[in-house]
Amino acid sequence: MKTYFPNTEKIQFEGESSRNPLAFRYYDENRIVAGKTMKEHLRYAVCYWHTFCGTGADPFGPGPQQLPWLNASNPMEQAHQKMDAAFEFFTKLGVPFYCFHDRDMAPEGNSVEESEANLWELVKRAKDKQAESGVKLLWGTANLFSHPRYMNGGATNSNFDVVCQGAAQVKAAIDATKFLGGENYVFWGGREGYDSLLNTNMKREKAHFAEFLRQCVNYAEETGFTGQFLIEPKPMEPTKHQYDVDSATVIGFLRENGLEKHFKINHEPNHGTLAGHDPAHDIQVAADAGMLGSIDANRGDAQNGWDTDQFPTNLNSAVDIMRIVLQQGGLAPGGLNFDAKTRRNSTDLEDIFYGHIGAMDNFARALVIADDVNNNSEIPKMLKQRYSSFDAGQGSAFEAGKLSLSDLRDLAATKGEPTQISGQQELYENIYNIHIG
Amino acid sequence: MKTYFPNTEKIQFEGESSRNPLAFRYYDENRIVAGKTMKEHLRYAVCYWHTFCGTGADPFGPGPQQLPWLNASNPMEQAHQKMDAAFEFFTKLGVPFYCFHDRDMAPEGNSVEESEANLWELVKRAKDKQAESGVKLLWGTANLFSHPRYMNGGATNSNFDVVCQGAAQVKAAIDATKFLGGENYVFWGGREGYDSLLNTNMKREKAHFAEFLRQCVNYAEETGFTGQFLIEPKPMEPTKHQYDVDSATVIGFLRENGLEKHFKINHEPNHGTLAGHDPAHDIQVAADAGMLGSIDANRGDAQNGWDTDQFPTNLNSAVDIMRIVLQQGGLAPGGLNFDAKTRRNSTDLEDIFYGHIGAMDNFARALVIADDVNNNSEIPKMLKQRYSSFDAGQGSAFEAGKLSLSDLRDLAATKGEPTQISGQQELYENIYNIHIG
Amino acid sequence: MKTYFPNTEKIQFEGESSRNPLAFRYYDENRIVAGKTMKEHLRYAVCYWHTFCGTGADPFGPGPQQLPWLNASNPMEQAHQKMDAAFEFFTKLGVPFYCFHDRDMAPEGNSVEESEANLWELVKRAKDKQAESGVKLLWGTANLFSHPRYMNGGATNSNFDVVCQGAAQVKAAIDATKFLGGENYVFWGGREGYDSLLNTNMKREKAHFAEFLRQCVNYAEETGFTGQFLIEPKPMEPTKHQYDVDSATVIGFLRENGLEKHFKINHEPNHGTLAGHDPAHDIQVAADAGMLGSIDANRGDAQNGWDTDQFPTNLNSAVDIMRIVLQQGGLAPGGLNFDAKTRRNSTDLEDIFYGHIGAMDNFARALVIADDVNNNSEIPKMLKQRYSSFDAGQGSAFEAGKLSLSDLRDLAATKGEPTQISGQQELYENIYNIHIG
Amino acid sequence: MKTYFPNTEKIQFEGESSRNPLAFRYYDENRIVAGKTMKEHLRYAVCYWHTFCGTGADPFGPGPQQLPWLNASNPMEQAHQKMDAAFEFFTKLGVPFYCFHDRDMAPEGNSVEESEANLWELVKRAKDKQAESGVKLLWGTANLFSHPRYMNGGATNSNFDVVCQGAAQVKAAIDATKFLGGENYVFWGGREGYDSLLNTNMKREKAHFAEFLRQCVNYAEETGFTGQFLIEPKPMEPTKHQYDVDSATVIGFLRENGLEKHFKINHEPNHGTLAGHDPAHDIQVAADAGMLGSIDANRGDAQNGWDTDQFPTNLNSAVDIMRIVLQQGGLAPGGLNFDAKTRRNSTDLEDIFYGHIGAMDNFARALVIADDVNNNSEIPKMLKQRYSSFDAGQGSAFEAGKLSLSDLRDLAATKGEPTQISGQQELYENIYNIHIG
Ligand SMILES: [Co+2]
Ligand SMILES: [Co+2]
Ligand SMILES: [Co+2]
Ligand SMILES: [Co+2]
Ligand SMILES: [Co+2]
Ligand SMILES: [Co+2]
Ligand SMILES: [Co+2]
Ligand SMILES: [Co+2]
Repeated sequence: MKTYFPNTEKIQFEGESSRNPLAFRYYDENRIVAGKTMKEHLRYAVCYWHTFCGTGADPFGPGPQQLPWLNASNPMEQAHQKMDAAFEFFTKLGVPFYCFHDRDMAPEGNSVEESEANLWELVKRAKDKQAESGVKLLWGTANLFSHPRYMNGGATNSNFDVVCQGAAQVKAAIDATKFLGGENYVFWGGREGYDSLLNTNMKREKAHFAEFLRQCVNYAEETGFTGQFLIEPKPMEPTKHQYDVDSATVIGFLRENGLEKHFKINHEPNHGTLAGHDPAHDIQVAADAGMLGSIDANRGDAQNGWDTDQFPTNLNSAVDIMRIVLQQGGLAPGGLNFDAKTRRNSTDLEDIFYGHIGAMDNFARALVIADDVNNNSEIPKMLKQRYSSFDAGQGSAFEAGKLSLSDLRDLAATKGEPTQISGQQELYENIYNIHIG
Repeated sequence: MKTYFPNTEKIQFEGESSRNPLAFRYYDENRIVAGKTMKEHLRYAVCYWHTFCGTGADPFGPGPQQLPWLNASNPMEQAHQKMDAAFEFFTKLGVPFYCFHDRDMAPEGNSVEESEANLWELVKRAKDKQAESGVKLLWGTANLFSHPRYMNGGATNSNFDVVCQGAAQVKAAIDATKFLGGENYVFWGGREGYDSLLNTNMKREKAHFAEFLRQCVNYAEETGFTGQFLIEPKPMEPTKHQYDVDSATVIGFLRENGLEKHFKINHEPNHGTLAGHDPAHDIQVAADAGMLGSIDANRGDAQNGWDTDQFPTNLNSAVDIMRIVLQQGGLAPGGLNFDAKTRRNSTDLEDIFYGHIGAMDNFARALVIADDVNNNSEIPKMLKQRYSSFDAGQGSAFEAGKLSLSDLRDLAATKGEPTQISGQQELYENIYNIHIG
Repeated sequence: MKTYFPNTEKIQFEGESSRNPLAFRYYDENRIVAGKTMKEHLRYAVCYWHTFCGTGADPFGPGPQQLPWLNASNPMEQAHQKMDAAFEFFTKLGVPFYCFHDRDMAPEGNSVEESEANLWELVKRAKDKQAESGVKLLWGTANLFSHPRYMNGGATNSNFDVVCQGAAQVKAAIDATKFLGGENYVFWGGREGYDSLLNTNMKREKAHFAEFLRQCVNYAEETGFTGQFLIEPKPMEPTKHQYDVDSATVIGFLRENGLEKHFKINHEPNHGTLAGHDPAHDIQVAADAGMLGSIDANRGDAQNGWDTDQFPTNLNSAVDIMRIVLQQGGLAPGGLNFDAKTRRNSTDLEDIFYGHIGAMDNFARALVIADDVNNNSEIPKMLKQRYSSFDAGQGSAFEAGKLSLSDLRDLAATKGEPTQISGQQELYENIYNIHIG
Repeated sequence: MKTYFPNTEKIQFEGESSRNPLAFRYYDENRIVAGKTMKEHLRYAVCYWHTFCGTGADPFGPGPQQLPWLNASNPMEQAHQKMDAAFEFFTKLGVPFYCFHDRDMAPEGNSVEESEANLWELVKRAKDKQAESGVKLLWGTANLFSHPRYMNGGATNSNFDVVCQGAAQVKAAIDATKFLGGENYVFWGGREGYDSLLNTNMKREKAHFAEFLRQCVNYAEETGFTGQFLIEPKPMEPTKHQYDVDSATVIGFLRENGLEKHFKINHEPNHGTLAGHDPAHDIQVAADAGMLGSIDANRGDAQNGWDTDQFPTNLNSAVDIMRIVLQQGGLAPGGLNFDAKTRRNSTDLEDIFYGHIGAMDNFARALVIADDVNNNSEIPKMLKQRYSSFDAGQGSAFEAGKLSLSDLRDLAATKGEPTQISGQQELYENIYNIHIG
């Protein structure tokens, strides 16, 4: 079979001292950390869209990246070649998972039936390739944002006919995900939002979105799809106001509509940044609600107001995230999906490897540090101490709902002015840096 | 009695042609719009804090504004003079309402009891002055953010003793609000948030906040306070991550904790701006949930990342807001409270009048325009037409939950590619501008 | 000849009371304001790129707008049809000017020569159509950002060979602009910037940019092109750090390189917004330096961090701009070019008319108001008074450079504490709103 | 003499393995890196204002930090005690330098003369304490932003009388700096900017600023002050539009006014962040112009739009900065001044030590890494190679100004389509991370 990365062998772990840019320095998939292998903790996935479909286009020009698997002029032939390249890449990189949108894997046809048939042809092939390679599907999803028909929304379109089209895509994508043993299914509402209140009935659009999700839950139950449903928040772009702003907004929406048992969050740090949050904040919000399902591991730029989808190579940020992941006992059935792309001018095929290797090493290193901070540093003890007034006595009674406002007022009068207790943020930061250092 | 604004008479409505800077050009309190007087629609309130306590201090220097009612060196005497000035101002400006924090009205004492006594002394006086002047209390609140003891939070403080102090203040402030016939009571969590996850147990802090609110609900029920409880969202400042980010976050938090029946939103546009939203978006979110309670009418600057609390003199923005208010049938028992301050270098006493007059005229004008857009423009018809595919037939069945994902898919297959329908945003904007023009 | 807008007649001025969405309500090209016609003041131009080449593509999907003049499969035939559509539109809209990039007008060929020939064929045709229609060229420019070869920069590319390609384009575009009687020539450095300092020699890149501009100046002098050279600032997007950040940065760069006599600013408000400025601020900076050359009239969204290029329909913002334009005696040889596009989902051909009509009416109205504020309001007098201490006496001596630091210190000691003078911002704002109202 | 930090001994270097929070792990002042000691490279300074005058006040409440040296009720006595505390702190921390504003060191008096006398009394004392301790003055400055008289600006005030007051302060502060052997003198224009164009004559204000600086240059020449003059840019806060936006704006302003020989930039990273730049970008801009004079080492938060002035504990950011500093051969006579403050709720006196220690360790570590990246990594070679087409041949001729636009066009035609060369940003980032790791 044709090879698409002839110059790159399987990426090996060579250890910290290696200077080989095509080797891992930290990611040793079998290394045990906190009782599990790195592979089990990190559950890395490569995304189909940026890595095999994107060529670096941006609003100011078409993509300069020449991907040999996109040369075929017949769209179905192109899709097959793309799949060969994808599985070659997954295997050479050594990731256990991948993710895809329906339209990444197979081209849209001229009718619902033809689109389904196209997808099915490729999905069957993917099943064989999964079996061959051992690579598994982390999650599937449907692209309800690229096609012009979704310009006014997918599930929230002002025209019911378009909602039906979206439903057809989602149904097929859930079927495909189930067939491929996908462990999750993701909803990202790329066009679910609006630009102007003047022409928008937000309440009705959100009610449609809830109804749409409800039918997806029903469908999964009917058909026996047991993967985890996930929603991926984003506050803006492409629309001014996306409906799934951030973790709290999505969780609130799910609760309002009685859907909170059926969905978790797929968190993308770049989107958290766009929402004005430290990504770790938004991930913690999801984790605190028991709803952190998976992570689209990437990074944005807090000063550039669009989704830069860069590879996540910042160590501090990865440690912040891995501490939360470890505290909740891992991400499974979710994982760390690299929803990241090389820069537009990174036009060598090796650049795709560099991007992923840097990110995988970064999170592997962060895993070890996060475990160290959680277990060996003073931080957890200091934090426990900080809230200890609620662990017993009246503080504990307050937590248990046993003290009325008048009771609390009387305690205040009795106790007098509280002792001042420093928040010690600088000390916490220094200790944290010791463990990162 | 001493007058604090000797050079200013009661502000009169003089009509559009007036060039008198100390007159209203649009706000004619008795003018009927959409079946109610302007006064009834707009329910203007002046805030105690910015207008009578603030002297223009900012992080780079103390306040240059010399307020004659703050000259007394005895804090209680100062509080009495401030109240005289406040009611003189309310009366001369001609607003029906005011709002206050406990510490605006009376100084903190050396103990819970002394603070309560201080407050009570002034509150009793306020009741008399309300009766005299006819000015009413829109809402009261407690300041749980200025005193150093709240540096780690009020209701979310890591030290239970501080939570008790906060409870004492809130209890007294609810009592005061009830006594004064306040129509609402507001919670703004100025220090309820955090700067670093390293030293923060967000989940526990938020649980404490919910418990605190629960006890306030109980207390209101016990004591027969029937005013509306309101929460005022803000995403950041003073902390990096405030817990009450925006309308959706607050509403989700209330639902999670079973509190959604007891609270509505007091929305401040400047805070909506800081959250990355058009204020109208965030207000619409609250209105759509049936939870838009009141508005802290001001404006911010989307390019300055702090709470500038400027007077709301932008017409378009006010029209956006008044359209929502009219659509929900008004704000009562809430109102439009000018949580706005003159610029630091606006040091003439007249400047406070200019600020309020400009804002009152702006919203009065906006009320008329909003009513016109809602009733006389093409916009509502165009908007209804845009969603008409859901008003009958299969679209209506979808809304009613009667179509499964498979049904929708089959409709998509049958109907084929939907007709493209322009969103016509430019046309909507032009029509809107015609009515504003 | 084929008509591309068969349903739209020439747009007429119908006056304020008109409700015809395809008529002007304020823009009466022959109306005299401040001694000149509206047409002469406003010098409106339609841009070729958004209006005839853009179909609404964004990073999340291809363009849904079906433009009949783009149907031809042969690129040159397409270019000819596009030109027919463009001049039909210019004429029906009634604008005196248009603007273009080389690649908007004619497709890139397989060699420098072929590209030049393609361009020349269309440019000759454009000259005829200009003569026929009376529409003139406000400015031309070269697109050094879309082609993949410019992915590392145009004039600032790290590879000299690409700089040469850019020079070839600019030379041809200057030639074309000259031939067409273009009154200006614009440089927008779409790829002149960088994403990472790690792989960037900023100093060398900027030196190359200066040298490139120097040779353009020489070329204009050699060939007798007398149009005004303009640089269009933008702070970010597509790169993290664009070199031409804002007016002050560009002016500083020009001065550093001795180029300040040869260039002015083409200011785009959306770019000013992205730079963190009120557009009026950045325009005033250019005007104060005597370097405000032209304006790409559009609007952005201060909360969306990308170039939304919306039609400029905000009245206050347009008044701010027109006050500056009037104060400097007009924009000629520059003008107001609508570098704006309909929203992606505005898919009716009429939407392009709505966008332009709304913008043209808005600036026409703003022109009248700005003239009124400048001449009939209290604002200019108040402003003059505010600085009057520098108009005579020691203040005037200070301005003239006649007072040393010691002199000033001695004056301070003699004069004692200065009288406090309010900045009266609220009063200024209210007066402004009276004139806008 | 009274000790203010009785529980803290002189901070010692203990090496990486130390877990003592009051010891250095990286900052070993005598360690040689790149031919100089760490002390010589880093030139650390403690700032007087945040560390000895600030008590944690913010716009929402007064400061909770109880500083024992501020207990005296007599302002001059307080100033003396503060100075004792300051020199005790400098000495125990082991920094070679400090910085101050006039009003940090001595209180304003009731007249120019009294203010001068107050300052002089303390300055003479400081000289003795410098001699005793060996601590030196990095720079002095005058506070022209806190006093209410500067509410409309300092040097740019609309009232000439206020400009005189500012001049008196600056004169005295330059005198003091000279007397104390200060190596630099800084101008930060805290109130030099504006909020509304309506009441502002920006051009005139900036002309006044230039004239003011010109007289300062004259004064330094007359009096023989040979320290370096520095301007500190900041884009906004307290005003909407500060005049000294960023490095490029300040440098452009200096050039426009013929002042570029007399001033360099004092760069504060937090201010660079507020300007929408990576701090390293803005620092590189200054360095490229030969105008990087000194650094106010702190960090901000790109998502919080105000000056958080946090201690600079981010390693990547410090490495970015130190690479530039090393490339320009050091900062002297400037240095790294910690214009940073502990968080409001960091109320232990030890917190001030923690803040500084973390920052000093961070930059010490960054110095070593930056030297390593500059000398031992592939990055400089890759970077040189990237621009090598300009090192000889036609590229070199272009740099030398020998190729006309036509020459470049002809080269393009001859050479044909350039070879595509990847920017390899991911590879650069991975290599960088190896050296940081
Ligand atoms: Co994602
Ligand atoms: Co993304
Ligand atoms: Co408020
Ligand atoms: Co506010
Ligand atoms: Co433009
Ligand atoms: Co633009
Ligand atoms: Co500073
Ligand atoms: Co700062």
